[in-house]
Amino acid sequence: MKRSILIGPSSFGETSRKPIEILEKKGFHVIKNPYGRKIKKKELIKLLSKNVVGLIAGLENLDNEVLSKSSLKIISRVGSGTSNIDLQSLKKNKIILFSIPDGPVASVSELTVANIINLFRNIVPMNKDLQNGKWKRQIGNELKGKNILIIGYGRIGRKVASLLEPFEVNIMVYDPYLSIKLKKKYKMVSLNQGLKKADLITIHSSGNKCILGKDEFKTMKNGMLLCNAARGELISERDLIHALKSGVVTAGWLDTFEEEPYDGKLTKFKQLILTPHIGSYTRECRTSMEEKAVNNLIRSLNLNAN
Amino acid sequence: MKRSILIGPSSFGETSRKPIEILEKKGFHVIKNPYGRKIKKKELIKLLSKNVVGLIAGLENLDNEVLSKSSLKIISRVGSGTSNIDLQSLKKNKIILFSIPDGPVASVSELTVANIINLFRNIVPMNKDLQNGKWKRQIGNELKGKNILIIGYGRIGRKVASLLEPFEVNIMVYDPYLSIKLKKKYKMVSLNQGLKKADLITIHSSGNKCILGKDEFKTMKNGMLLCNAARGELISERDLIHALKSGVVTAGWLDTFEEEPYDGKLTKFKQLILTPHIGSYTRECRTSMEEKAVNNLIRSLNLNAN
Repeated sequence: MKRSILIGPSSFGETSRKPIEILEKKGFHVIKNPYGRKIKKKELIKLLSKNVVGLIAGLENLDNEVLSKSSLKIISRVGSGTSNIDLQSLKKNKIILFSIPDGPVASVSELTVANIINLFRNIVPMNKDLQNGKWKRQIGNELKGKNILIIGYGRIGRKVASLLEPFEVNIMVYDPYLSIKLKKKYKMVSLNQGLKKADLITIHSSGNKCILGKDEFKTMKNGMLLCNAARGELISERDLIHALKSGVVTAGWLDTFEEEPYDGKLTKFKQLILTPHIGSYTRECRTSMEEKAVNNLIRSLNLNAN
Repeated sequence: MKRSILIGPSSFGETSRKPIEILEKKGFHVIKNPYGRKIKKKELIKLLSKNVVGLIAGLENLDNEVLSKSSLKIISRVGSGTSNIDLQSLKKNKIILFSIPDGPVASVSELTVANIINLFRNIVPMNKDLQNGKWKRQIGNELKGKNILIIGYGRIGRKVASLLEPFEVNIMVYDPYLSIKLKKKYKMVSLNQGLKKADLITIHSSGNKCILGKDEFKTMKNGMLLCNAARGELISERDLIHALKSGVVTAGWLDTFEEEPYDGKLTKFKQLILTPHIGSYTRECRTSMEEKAVNNLIRSLNLNAN
């Protein structure tokens, strides 16, 4: 009986057939995501109950129940984050995990810079007006000279900082787990200091523990701009809505949500730019990450078989 | 009788009262734009027929007829471009012209970089979908590694190039009037070479002679992205529409139009991002340019009076 590989991400193979062909040539039976969206927990347990030894993983909920009921030997993430995976359960169930830490860096960082400027300049609402025949100029602000707080100074946070450098902004970094030395011209801050001084906050931290909740929105200076390209859970939706209504936050860009696909209350706020978790969704990034994920999986399964 | 100053731009004084106060303190009678939009030629002739010695100018049509009928001594542009002004007629009528070449550089360049990425990533249509409750991911392209053709390598073109540097793009420059040496890593090209190789074209040249017409759209590689932050006249609207319909141009950002306010055919193309000539429309840029324009005008009128 052929060993099976489950492909989690519904978009896998869209930009190039090559990664799936590699798996098939190596003799694996490939099970694609049959739902066209993120696989839910119950569905996942069912799909993994067969002879599935490897998972090409997106952001599926890989908790202890799912992992313990599976026969998985390898999980190979098409991406960098692993906050959807119970790492202790991996150990217990002897499952090996691979991820691609550098994969999404360029795509996510570029998207972030665009949206930072989109927020300062109100590009999206003015385009909407003009396409409806309404010539209505809204004054914006220059990015130059602004105080930008980067929360999370991992690979993506660092790249965003370096892309922003020629724009002559003041970069502040908050990262309680920072292990490397900051560039001299950047300023390390506490969350409180950063919230008080920032004109714009952009979140690039890992994990999914809430960072911005009631207290943090209270601390912020009024008129804040907010970007989240990391995880929806990092911002309390309820408190964000309150901050939008009270004017503490005047505009924001969100690419990630607690529940995806998202169609919640935030869609009603026209001062937000909402994108459907497309941080790493570029042809270049997908093709390169899918090939890497497949190669990680095959190399490891071959090693295990020997 | 007080000498009068006409203020062309309808938005003048919005971000700060200071520039108008300076004029009034100096004893001038200030005539504001009464129309809330660009003053038309006939209106301009009428407004300038009185005792108006100075004009704070936007992009009004300052041709020989307008200038000859006026009693203007000074025109002080709130901006850099002077293609709306008949320079020969200035000489003939002994009118002195000031402009602010550096004024809009940061604002226009920042806006350009945002829209370059907006086009590569389809941010605007995805936001629209999601705000209508539709989670529909569209794959994009990384900016990294792309061929960017900058047409016009003046102050703004140079700034756009330098802002793009950390994104690791290949920068090609077309500028027949280039008088300075290019950076080694940029490539000087003919328009033909550039059109064939570029993934995206961004126009930052002065003047208002058409650069992209039928022949140029024929030469381009299919799937072109196009940005115009300079002057609407630089692209033939008819030929652009044809190129959009045939797929030669897949998306574009336009901030300037032959006729403004614009409500023409291009508003029907959802693959375009349209903004109402906001390149320099930021608080920082307006405040600084308005003060400079007023100071240029006053200094020069005082010199003339002595």
